[in-house]
Amino acid sequence: MSSNSFGKLFTVTTFGESHGPAIGCVIDGCPPGLAISEEEFRQDLDRRATGKSRHTSQRREADDVEILSGMYEGKTTGTPIALLIRNTDQRSKDYGDIASTFRPGHADYTYWQKYGIRDPRGGGRSSARETTMRVAAAVVAKKWLAERHGVRVRGYLAQLGSLAPSDFDWNAVEQNPFFWPCAEQVPELEKAMDALRKSGDSVGARVSVVAEGVPPGWGEPIYGKLDGDLASALMSINAVKGVEIGDGFAAVSQHGSEHRDEMRLDGFTSNHAGGILGGISTGQAVVASIALKPTSSILIPGRSVNLAGEPVDVVTKGRHDPCVGIRATPIAEAMMALVLMDHALRHRAQCGDVGIVAPRIP
Amino acid sequence: MSSNSFGKLFTVTTFGESHGPAIGCVIDGCPPGLAISEEEFRQDLDRRATGKSRHTSQRREADDVEILSGMYEGKTTGTPIALLIRNTDQRSKDYGDIASTFRPGHADYTYWQKYGIRDPRGGGRSSARETTMRVAAAVVAKKWLAERHGVRVRGYLAQLGSLAPSDFDWNAVEQNPFFWPCAEQVPELEKAMDALRKSGDSVGARVSVVAEGVPPGWGEPIYGKLDGDLASALMSINAVKGVEIGDGFAAVSQHGSEHRDEMRLDGFTSNHAGGILGGISTGQAVVASIALKPTSSILIPGRSVNLAGEPVDVVTKGRHDPCVGIRATPIAEAMMALVLMDHALRHRAQCGDVGIVAPRIP
Amino acid sequence: MSSNSFGKLFTVTTFGESHGPAIGCVIDGCPPGLAISEEEFRQDLDRRATGKSRHTSQRREADDVEILSGMYEGKTTGTPIALLIRNTDQRSKDYGDIASTFRPGHADYTYWQKYGIRDPRGGGRSSARETTMRVAAAVVAKKWLAERHGVRVRGYLAQLGSLAPSDFDWNAVEQNPFFWPCAEQVPELEKAMDALRKSGDSVGARVSVVAEGVPPGWGEPIYGKLDGDLASALMSINAVKGVEIGDGFAAVSQHGSEHRDEMRLDGFTSNHAGGILGGISTGQAVVASIALKPTSSILIPGRSVNLAGEPVDVVTKGRHDPCVGIRATPIAEAMMALVLMDHALRHRAQCGDVGIVAPRIP
Amino acid sequence: MSSNSFGKLFTVTTFGESHGPAIGCVIDGCPPGLAISEEEFRQDLDRRATGKSRHTSQRREADDVEILSGMYEGKTTGTPIALLIRNTDQRSKDYGDIASTFRPGHADYTYWQKYGIRDPRGGGRSSARETTMRVAAAVVAKKWLAERHGVRVRGYLAQLGSLAPSDFDWNAVEQNPFFWPCAEQVPELEKAMDALRKSGDSVGARVSVVAEGVPPGWGEPIYGKLDGDLASALMSINAVKGVEIGDGFAAVSQHGSEHRDEMRLDGFTSNHAGGILGGISTGQAVVASIALKPTSSILIPGRSVNLAGEPVDVVTKGRHDPCVGIRATPIAEAMMALVLMDHALRHRAQCGDVGIVAPRIP
Repeated sequence: MSSNSFGKLFTVTTFGESHGPAIGCVIDGCPPGLAISEEEFRQDLDRRATGKSRHTSQRREADDVEILSGMYEGKTTGTPIALLIRNTDQRSKDYGDIASTFRPGHADYTYWQKYGIRDPRGGGRSSARETTMRVAAAVVAKKWLAERHGVRVRGYLAQLGSLAPSDFDWNAVEQNPFFWPCAEQVPELEKAMDALRKSGDSVGARVSVVAEGVPPGWGEPIYGKLDGDLASALMSINAVKGVEIGDGFAAVSQHGSEHRDEMRLDGFTSNHAGGILGGISTGQAVVASIALKPTSSILIPGRSVNLAGEPVDVVTKGRHDPCVGIRATPIAEAMMALVLMDHALRHRAQCGDVGIVAPRIP
Repeated sequence: MSSNSFGKLFTVTTFGESHGPAIGCVIDGCPPGLAISEEEFRQDLDRRATGKSRHTSQRREADDVEILSGMYEGKTTGTPIALLIRNTDQRSKDYGDIASTFRPGHADYTYWQKYGIRDPRGGGRSSARETTMRVAAAVVAKKWLAERHGVRVRGYLAQLGSLAPSDFDWNAVEQNPFFWPCAEQVPELEKAMDALRKSGDSVGARVSVVAEGVPPGWGEPIYGKLDGDLASALMSINAVKGVEIGDGFAAVSQHGSEHRDEMRLDGFTSNHAGGILGGISTGQAVVASIALKPTSSILIPGRSVNLAGEPVDVVTKGRHDPCVGIRATPIAEAMMALVLMDHALRHRAQCGDVGIVAPRIP
Repeated sequence: MSSNSFGKLFTVTTFGESHGPAIGCVIDGCPPGLAISEEEFRQDLDRRATGKSRHTSQRREADDVEILSGMYEGKTTGTPIALLIRNTDQRSKDYGDIASTFRPGHADYTYWQKYGIRDPRGGGRSSARETTMRVAAAVVAKKWLAERHGVRVRGYLAQLGSLAPSDFDWNAVEQNPFFWPCAEQVPELEKAMDALRKSGDSVGARVSVVAEGVPPGWGEPIYGKLDGDLASALMSINAVKGVEIGDGFAAVSQHGSEHRDEMRLDGFTSNHAGGILGGISTGQAVVASIALKPTSSILIPGRSVNLAGEPVDVVTKGRHDPCVGIRATPIAEAMMALVLMDHALRHRAQCGDVGIVAPRIP
Repeated sequence: MSSNSFGKLFTVTTFGESHGPAIGCVIDGCPPGLAISEEEFRQDLDRRATGKSRHTSQRREADDVEILSGMYEGKTTGTPIALLIRNTDQRSKDYGDIASTFRPGHADYTYWQKYGIRDPRGGGRSSARETTMRVAAAVVAKKWLAERHGVRVRGYLAQLGSLAPSDFDWNAVEQNPFFWPCAEQVPELEKAMDALRKSGDSVGARVSVVAEGVPPGWGEPIYGKLDGDLASALMSINAVKGVEIGDGFAAVSQHGSEHRDEMRLDGFTSNHAGGILGGISTGQAVVASIALKPTSSILIPGRSVNLAGEPVDVVTKGRHDPCVGIRATPIAEAMMALVLMDHALRHRAQCGDVGIVAPRIP
């Protein structure tokens, strides 16, 4: 499979650069007959939109999705669905002065080493702009998963720098610009963000995603495990440096008698495994978390080199986004949804539509 | 691609159950002309072998690899290399009494829910026995990477339960059965393991892998990123619940001014990124870590249910391995090597054998 | 790989319906640094264009390609190249009256059986309109193959109904609207076409494609053979019912002493094999031919059924194209080029950029 | 996907050389719960066996299949099924004297140009011996297709050199060593074969395969068409130079009014299309034919060159098989079955187990 395509049976191919004419995607393998409107795309894209609050990057994009193919009279036809978003806010001059330098912590140097060509326009293909199309494609996946299996995928910001939620409420998550699960702490977060903005620095973040309603049996041994596919899907999000399933790294210091999730007739007694055993879903909530590094696009000068091989100091001008992790919540949800969708189809390919009728723990 | 195959251009397909007649693999896409002997497989398999010390599972297998195809006069021919290992120590009776129960924390329940069939022989396909073939296949990858690019892949145990290395020395790693980088602590580890064995419980572990000599430019945006592929490769190892690249989850509480690796004419000043930016190698060491959960195969009874839908208590008899993470070091190295090999070939497909001749930071 | 994607390393994904808003493609895996202009696309698309002469369908399309991504300052960057063509001549009313019937010999019935949804707009995804994007994508492949390896791909109409060329001249091919290799026969062809148009009927055609300059060694055993991949590529063209490599079906009645191509120090003495042995190129010209069925879109009424399950008579109104095979020549060239491009990259992945330095027959 | 693997969801990976220690395959993606015995493999392998009659190559192999994995208590478990056959009749000395020459019409020269390595043992990987594993893998596919969908795949020899069947009877096919559909002509065929053997020459053949019971809707547009996949599957068989679906090349000189298969309420009135329209099955019998070249392994000397770059005359000693096409019948059936199996699973992945409930023409 090509490296700009994601998924085996529900395949999403994305294209486009941050400051080129457009970004887009082609969704291949969607079952026919799914009703979906352009309005549904708009809602999720707005949620991801960078201009949502003063705490995220100031780029303001219309992000109007045009459906180019694969639908007829409001329903999917089974043929590829192409989505297109024109880049209206290109402002490539913002980036012009760094065309000849390599920004520390960015993909400038590695793309140049790989391809021998430097597309300085806003990070080109390595920009988080590309993730817009993942969110768009996931609208289709989420709708099918909800209608067909009652699956619901939700995420939240689980840490901002060293701040952790002091309480947890799903209802709070959608009511603040941080996707933070504790309403009381929001003023504290705003203060922390303002301080960062003032200092010109940035912090990392932790985002968690939870999928409820996933039936047991999704996931394929050995190299198509549900957790393996989640790991690559989530690691492919910009700035992600770590992925956990269930308890993740906390499991290192746990004991077996503590970690194993016991089973009773009325269900599992805990979910340390994050809903996956042996790469296959257990029927519990599928839980994953990611670590996002602090962005390197900061106002504090950093030492680097330029194309001429000279030492330089680099300062990122233009937009400054002290915590890119905030924006990652809808993207992480999208990747979880795309992985689940793909495995739903893979499962029914091998095991049939109704699946195996085995007694289940509720 | 099928779910029991790994890699796009250097493709490894494994087969076999823990207590079936044999396990094996087919390696497809190996360049022709690489000299390799059965002895080289034996060395790496011995290193992984479960009977290596009293601290790992007591299963003792010869693990003699038979090369079935793909070689002529000691060299690879370019056609698929099939490797076969007969299972000599089958002892399936050990597992017989748990054929009708689901062991908590194991893949019993999920395999049964997926396939409707229970193969109780030693965990069947979900057993860590399968990883033997990954280590075997990686022998080929490691040799080619070393000869062609001078790449060296090494791993070590970075945490055992709550014990962390107090010092670091690569030379120590191969001289103790724990792959532990600090010789002085080895007695302490042995004591901890003995205590665990006595209590019938288990602990988790953390393993780190480092690849030196990887040139800049390996890895493909967007869904074939080097870190994305490492994440799924490492997450596919039995018992792994988390993957980190470079600083991993520590990046959550770091500042951008601290995390970004500055560049000087004589090289990068740090390696928080773990040798990967934008999914492409920087030329620094590629560094990854994994979290392994404590095994659920313990002597302390756990509550579960059986096939008849009745509540039962489960105790894992037979072999008891208080920390499966110890065995994971050679397997993690193997997966890193397989990913790098695949990307080496993918890189030269798109960018040519010599690659791009761009000035590099040393 | 998704079913709307073609190629393993040089991957082309197409989307779009005949009478939807647009058609397009995403080319993934193109080496960086290849110079290419929108004008180069236009030339090849004009050559394919349906409105080229009165002997092909009267649809007149602008077919202006917009390059949406993957290029910077006129050169490929190594990231996905997206191409878009708006459908300007939609005239879907032409097809409106057949929305509820199944045209004999068309994909109406099979798409409906597969997807349960009928997109009556001009054949939807099954229209030959989709092949426009194959020709566009092949512009990139042909340029790289020519620059890098001196490969040249050319095709011609080798039979029109029962008419066969009486002489062969490559120069004639581009100078008549039939891609016919014998200039003298062109008036005869025009007469045959006029007669067909008058009768409201259609005929089949045979198209041959030749690639010169392909080095020995391209193609992969066993299921990635060069001829195997050519076969599926060519069979995927609308209306194709047969594929031959070299002598093809003529080989059935040949003797081994006649068919085998002997080798002399100054080269092969013949090319019955069509430049491929064991699935790998020999260094001779790669030769393939295809059979195209007579289109079912004719003015003579045909018996069919409708969505209501009633017997009906169907007449295709609107455009009438008595021999769709004529248009297939540039498309067959395109598919040959795409297959060769993919195998060029696959070959250098496994065997390196310079390949094996073995003495060659000239 | 690797080039020694076939199929997207029902994936068969083969390995092994003609005169190496063994040949084998790994079948990945088989649905669980299918009962199958080693005896069932033996039947089909005997049918293919080269020693079946004096009219095919004299190699006599036991071809006992060992099932290494993927089954438990006689049923498939859903995990990969590995099959192994030891090469007992290696006689590599037969081929020893041609180790340094290139046989005209063989893959010797192309493998050497590709890999720079010459494995002279009986053609190595390019030997038809590899097809044994296709027949073995197809046993699984055929059984599932029959049980689940009532699909039956049968083939016959449709031409031997210039001899064509004068009558057609499926019952005759299995009762003569040629798979010939007309019992009366068998003595004539034997005479023709004896004459060929005496002359030391060979002829080509034509084989046809028919699948009955395929439901409408299998096959995926655009690059995963059922006919496209059949074309590459059949072209990948040794010595095949052409593939036809339905009327194939005969369609070139047909008229549209003759070729299109009209539909009536009681069914199609003809099957020129060979059961496929727009790449998707119509519900009629799927019909394909292949052209097999006359083998180049003949007793008549042919001019060639050797590794030293000198002109030589080559005679193939050892076994002489005047028409390799005869053996191709079971192999062509196997490839048809593998393609159908893969598409059955692909179809239910996208469109569900029950598929679309649309009124069908019987």
